[in-house]
Amino acid sequence: MSEPQFRSDRIATVAIIGGGLIGGSWIAFFLSRGLAVRVHDPRPDAEAAIRPIVERALADLAQLAPLAPLPAMSAAALEFCTELEDAVARADYVQENAPEVLDLKRSLLARIDAAAAPDVLIGSSTSSLRATDLQRDCKHPQRVMVAHPFNPPHLVPLVELVRGDKTAPEAQDAAYQWFVSLGKAPIRVTREARGHVANRMSSALWREAVHIVAEGIASVEDVDRAIRFGPGLRWAVDGPHMLYHLGGGEGGMADYLAHLGPAQEARWAELGAPVLDGRTRELLVAGVTDEAGSRSIADLASARDRRLIAVLQALDETS
Amino acid sequence: MSEPQFRSDRIATVAIIGGGLIGGSWIAFFLSRGLAVRVHDPRPDAEAAIRPIVERALADLAQLAPLAPLPAMSAAALEFCTELEDAVARADYVQENAPEVLDLKRSLLARIDAAAAPDVLIGSSTSSLRATDLQRDCKHPQRVMVAHPFNPPHLVPLVELVRGDKTAPEAQDAAYQWFVSLGKAPIRVTREARGHVANRMSSALWREAVHIVAEGIASVEDVDRAIRFGPGLRWAVDGPHMLYHLGGGEGGMADYLAHLGPAQEARWAELGAPVLDGRTRELLVAGVTDEAGSRSIADLASARDRRLIAVLQALDETS
Repeated sequence: MSEPQFRSDRIATVAIIGGGLIGGSWIAFFLSRGLAVRVHDPRPDAEAAIRPIVERALADLAQLAPLAPLPAMSAAALEFCTELEDAVARADYVQENAPEVLDLKRSLLARIDAAAAPDVLIGSSTSSLRATDLQRDCKHPQRVMVAHPFNPPHLVPLVELVRGDKTAPEAQDAAYQWFVSLGKAPIRVTREARGHVANRMSSALWREAVHIVAEGIASVEDVDRAIRFGPGLRWAVDGPHMLYHLGGGEGGMADYLAHLGPAQEARWAELGAPVLDGRTRELLVAGVTDEAGSRSIADLASARDRRLIAVLQALDETS
Repeated sequence: MSEPQFRSDRIATVAIIGGGLIGGSWIAFFLSRGLAVRVHDPRPDAEAAIRPIVERALADLAQLAPLAPLPAMSAAALEFCTELEDAVARADYVQENAPEVLDLKRSLLARIDAAAAPDVLIGSSTSSLRATDLQRDCKHPQRVMVAHPFNPPHLVPLVELVRGDKTAPEAQDAAYQWFVSLGKAPIRVTREARGHVANRMSSALWREAVHIVAEGIASVEDVDRAIRFGPGLRWAVDGPHMLYHLGGGEGGMADYLAHLGPAQEARWAELGAPVLDGRTRELLVAGVTDEAGSRSIADLASARDRRLIAVLQALDETS
């Protein structure tokens, strides 16, 4: 097989397969970048269910940057297709967002693969499945990969690009360049691992957060305050490795490891391994209920997104 | 002994014992809130070493909010004292920032305790020692606690208040109220644990970040990008428990645990336990060197603080 070439610098139309919260958020993001979007979702009421999600997400995006004047939000830019093949056949990129069921996703990806031109990149939003398993039944698996967004996908820049055994590194590179050109922050995952990269680190942090509550070291609310008003602020501006590099002073990471490596290893040895048993679940539910007070889930989520937009605006103006 | 009362609503003067980076940052913070500060540091060149740290931190603080007009930065507001007892005797609150050596801190705290009026709260900036061990030689240990800031202390709101066995809960409460009144975000740590709360979670996250690099799952730079452009943005606006509460939809944490608790436990079981051996250290140092490129440590640190200030401003305007 000669060197494969993948479409990445001439993408005008994106197909979205599966339009729940994640799919709807992707639709809004691509529309906001001036791309046409073709949507297939098997539900009979798909369009009625998805349009409000897209509209809310577009309103968020309009606060971050002027939306692409056309074709965003025009009828021609967003088309709902009854047939998956019809959505895919005219697309230059395909993003799949079906439920996290391997057999379902595998068969959908096989149909997408059969309908899409061989140079069209295909990304799956899966958070828990492996690209190697997903691409198994595809005839052109070299362009099939995981393209995992972080919730809410229209706001959070991260996209984790994971190769399966049969994905061409050039396809991952092409997807990387394209997402960069759209203003996303892609990363290349070079070896498959459960939870990819970001959710593994989130799980590690939450495991200790649960341990701290289960052991009575601090309350749910104070654990949340500790992150939000402490290291969370720093993680919004730099990653953990870079922060320890800066924590080492002029000698950077090498000095940090020489002086504080043993202290870190001692701390690692004392981290908790909690179990989500009945008692711990009760503590967590009671704790967040306390923390939420009279605020509804919708109030809290909208406050989170308002703050997230403010942070993204601030960082955009500072970078 | 009758109910102790602690000074917290009539604090005009703060003593800072030990004026390195942390002490200097505390000095600037207290000055910015209109408090007078008395500093004792045993180095002969203490004042010349500390003043530039204070001035840089005050310049950062001036970007966040107008500084208190007086006495901040006036000669009378910041006084360097040759004798520890002289700094402490006229203070309404004492913050100790000596090196992380138990015997040294213990004897300093005994001297501070002997010189301070019994209703004066005494906080230690220690990141690694226990309040119970630190207060052992104090005659009035009920007002001695850990008050651990997060670096850089003049910018990051978190202050972890940890009681030792002999600390009065009322003293922790009084410190809590006072730090809130200054615009800090204190938390109450109710059981001593190595690393308190925030650094335990930071260590848990970094352990997995190191594992991901050591196992070849992603590069140092991509791990940092994954946090900074992904979950880090969300942790600047909400804590981990609240985010999973919101991740559960209308059913909140209870539904999250019911549906995704088992998936979290499966992920916890697969998290790494890396060792900081020679090969891993080399990977980390080479990785951050790559990521830093031509930027010096000073460039990187100043970019971090510029972004941090922008995020704090944005959140302040949004809360």
